[in-house]
Amino acid sequence: MSNILVAQSGGPTAAINASLTGVIKGAKKTDGYERIFGALHGISGVIKEDFIELTDLTEEELRKIYCSPACYLGSCRYKMPSISEDSSIYEKIFDILDKKEIGAVFYIGGNDSMDTITKLAEYGNSIDSNIRFAGVPKTIDNDLVEIDHTPGYGSAAKYIAQSVLEMAHDTAIYEIPCVTIIEIMGRDAGWLTAASALARNSYSNIPQLIYLPEVAFDVENFVEDIKEKLKEVNNVVVAVSEGIRDASGNYISAQTAKEDKFGHAQLSGAGKCLEGIVKDRLGIKCRSVEINILQRCASHSTSLTDLEESQMLGEKAVQFAKEGNTGFMSTIRRISNDPYKCTIEMADLSHIANAARSVPRNWINESGNDVTSELINYMYPLIQGEVEIDFKNGLPEYMEISHLIGKKACNI
Amino acid sequence: MSNILVAQSGGPTAAINASLTGVIKGAKKTDGYERIFGALHGISGVIKEDFIELTDLTEEELRKIYCSPACYLGSCRYKMPSISEDSSIYEKIFDILDKKEIGAVFYIGGNDSMDTITKLAEYGNSIDSNIRFAGVPKTIDNDLVEIDHTPGYGSAAKYIAQSVLEMAHDTAIYEIPCVTIIEIMGRDAGWLTAASALARNSYSNIPQLIYLPEVAFDVENFVEDIKEKLKEVNNVVVAVSEGIRDASGNYISAQTAKEDKFGHAQLSGAGKCLEGIVKDRLGIKCRSVEINILQRCASHSTSLTDLEESQMLGEKAVQFAKEGNTGFMSTIRRISNDPYKCTIEMADLSHIANAARSVPRNWINESGNDVTSELINYMYPLIQGEVEIDFKNGLPEYMEISHLIGKKACNI
Repeated sequence: MSNILVAQSGGPTAAINASLTGVIKGAKKTDGYERIFGALHGISGVIKEDFIELTDLTEEELRKIYCSPACYLGSCRYKMPSISEDSSIYEKIFDILDKKEIGAVFYIGGNDSMDTITKLAEYGNSIDSNIRFAGVPKTIDNDLVEIDHTPGYGSAAKYIAQSVLEMAHDTAIYEIPCVTIIEIMGRDAGWLTAASALARNSYSNIPQLIYLPEVAFDVENFVEDIKEKLKEVNNVVVAVSEGIRDASGNYISAQTAKEDKFGHAQLSGAGKCLEGIVKDRLGIKCRSVEINILQRCASHSTSLTDLEESQMLGEKAVQFAKEGNTGFMSTIRRISNDPYKCTIEMADLSHIANAARSVPRNWINESGNDVTSELINYMYPLIQGEVEIDFKNGLPEYMEISHLIGKKACNI
Repeated sequence: MSNILVAQSGGPTAAINASLTGVIKGAKKTDGYERIFGALHGISGVIKEDFIELTDLTEEELRKIYCSPACYLGSCRYKMPSISEDSSIYEKIFDILDKKEIGAVFYIGGNDSMDTITKLAEYGNSIDSNIRFAGVPKTIDNDLVEIDHTPGYGSAAKYIAQSVLEMAHDTAIYEIPCVTIIEIMGRDAGWLTAASALARNSYSNIPQLIYLPEVAFDVENFVEDIKEKLKEVNNVVVAVSEGIRDASGNYISAQTAKEDKFGHAQLSGAGKCLEGIVKDRLGIKCRSVEINILQRCASHSTSLTDLEESQMLGEKAVQFAKEGNTGFMSTIRRISNDPYKCTIEMADLSHIANAARSVPRNWINESGNDVTSELINYMYPLIQGEVEIDFKNGLPEYMEISHLIGKKACNI
């Protein structure tokens, strides 16, 4: 018998806790695993031996964690040194793992987290350790390679599409010409912004324009696109990625914004910047809206497909590890789109860390101001299904996180 | 027998369509009213005779409208001239009303809309018209007088509290000291920002600081408040109204922001401004989040109490009009708080237009950085209850508004 260790790292998603409950459920189902430890704040919690025990969580508690936003175990941005650079940190970690009788480590996270778990697996191999190391993917950005789509993306996409649909109703009420710019997360990849296209329906083609970072942004073309749309309708809504750049790679944002009256540089993003351009060039009403961090933590409105897949990725990872595998990430392969079918498989970690996937150019229209039906068909199944959450006193009842909130820093 | 006319005006709320279905249901219930006309885009739609008939809407369609965001009939910002200034516009409107055999007009809106309906009622009296004129209140700002709370406020407050709760989970994951500024709507009144206090629960006291426009904002005190909170916890979350001002009445925002590389002035709000101050003065991680326009149109997450009251205000307004009343607004009087009980009554329109209600100073703590339990007890019942909405293809199924979307301007 041995114990398992699980941790979360990187930015929050609405689905990362579903992967956590998947690991816990998987460990309970699998013979040979006894206790389940969670390290708080990712790998830094392992180094500090900052553990909580998850073995005795009830079904009801697991259900609550499954539906709760952000990281139940907390997160970190700790970058592991290379083994050649500093092996002492690895020795320390493996001593702690041995002391805790850990047989398998599951690290739920994105790109950087896969780098961490890859290095741990490599060090484990170099000392012939029997400990299994597995990555469980997550990121709202959907930019991991070796996976059809990433856990957390479906829920973020659903929240974005829902928000754009509601903004379509909100922006349609006046008769005067008006342009609304909706800025959506995505520094390098346009997957999240593309999801705004899912808001279109039988009575609304909003957003009429969509710009992703994968295509160089041209201000003149943008102004022409808006003019064209205004010939047809009063109410033009545009979805843009925060990361849109011009042909020379400069972000379309107020990079040179000067100081305000308090002497603080006021930086503003693509949305505000394009708002200024529309007002200036077309002299019509324009506003910009930024879809805020709720797009990664709006657990009141998640995709059932996303949460179920995220939990399954955690559960399967435990099974794969128990079967003797190490240095892998559990991954999703799409078998068919209609009906939507996927399998959970293993991917070699070494192919994943430090690689990123953008929206293919042929999934963006030729003019670079919209997405294609192929991309819409790819996203569509990922937002399907709603997750029922309990409400208490008028608000969602999430799993309490007093072990995170109110904590004081104790840096490693 | 006569017909009724209903219109909506001012900014959207998640409840204004519930008041519309209330008027329609009320008219159907009340003997003596035959056809129900809706004017598109408020009073400007009346002047342009831009009507749609609502008489034959099915129960299912009414239910969909009840749950749909923004204004099903569209809105306008048209300010009626005073009667002495230009009576011709009134003559025109009353000719149209007579032609349509209108017996009662119901105008759903906020402060400015109450001004419009007041003037119409006054003109009606001056010519001994038998047409009844009633206002049905709405505004997320909760700043109307002669009413306990305004329709739309409860749903906005619920959305804000829910968002802050989810951001509490999102911001709690790292161990490093961090300040998050959440900017909430409210130019002159702090009611919406105060709702962030409802996010506090048994495991979280986030937001730890709340600043409303009713109290002069002092940057030095703000910095001291943050320092104090950081002694206790790493993760400090602050809720501020967009309208906070200093002692001289200047908005705390980047009023003097200079131009960006495209030559456009970049204005930024209170949140961005305070973010800069925290980074500069305390040198720690700080971000600002703006709760966007979803706070007024997030129909996927409304307060049942709010929607039921909003519908009842429309329904009762028809009844009051049928009883012979004119020049009134249907209003809410709170009878008891625990258990929460209200009645729908009439208020004299002439007391309402062009008056505004702020948060009473004694509902804000002495230091001006939090709200009192009295204010929390006042808000608490208004966010209770959830409204079930239908989903289709992974998104809320709202009432189609093809009569608004895709419309071209035809200014009056």
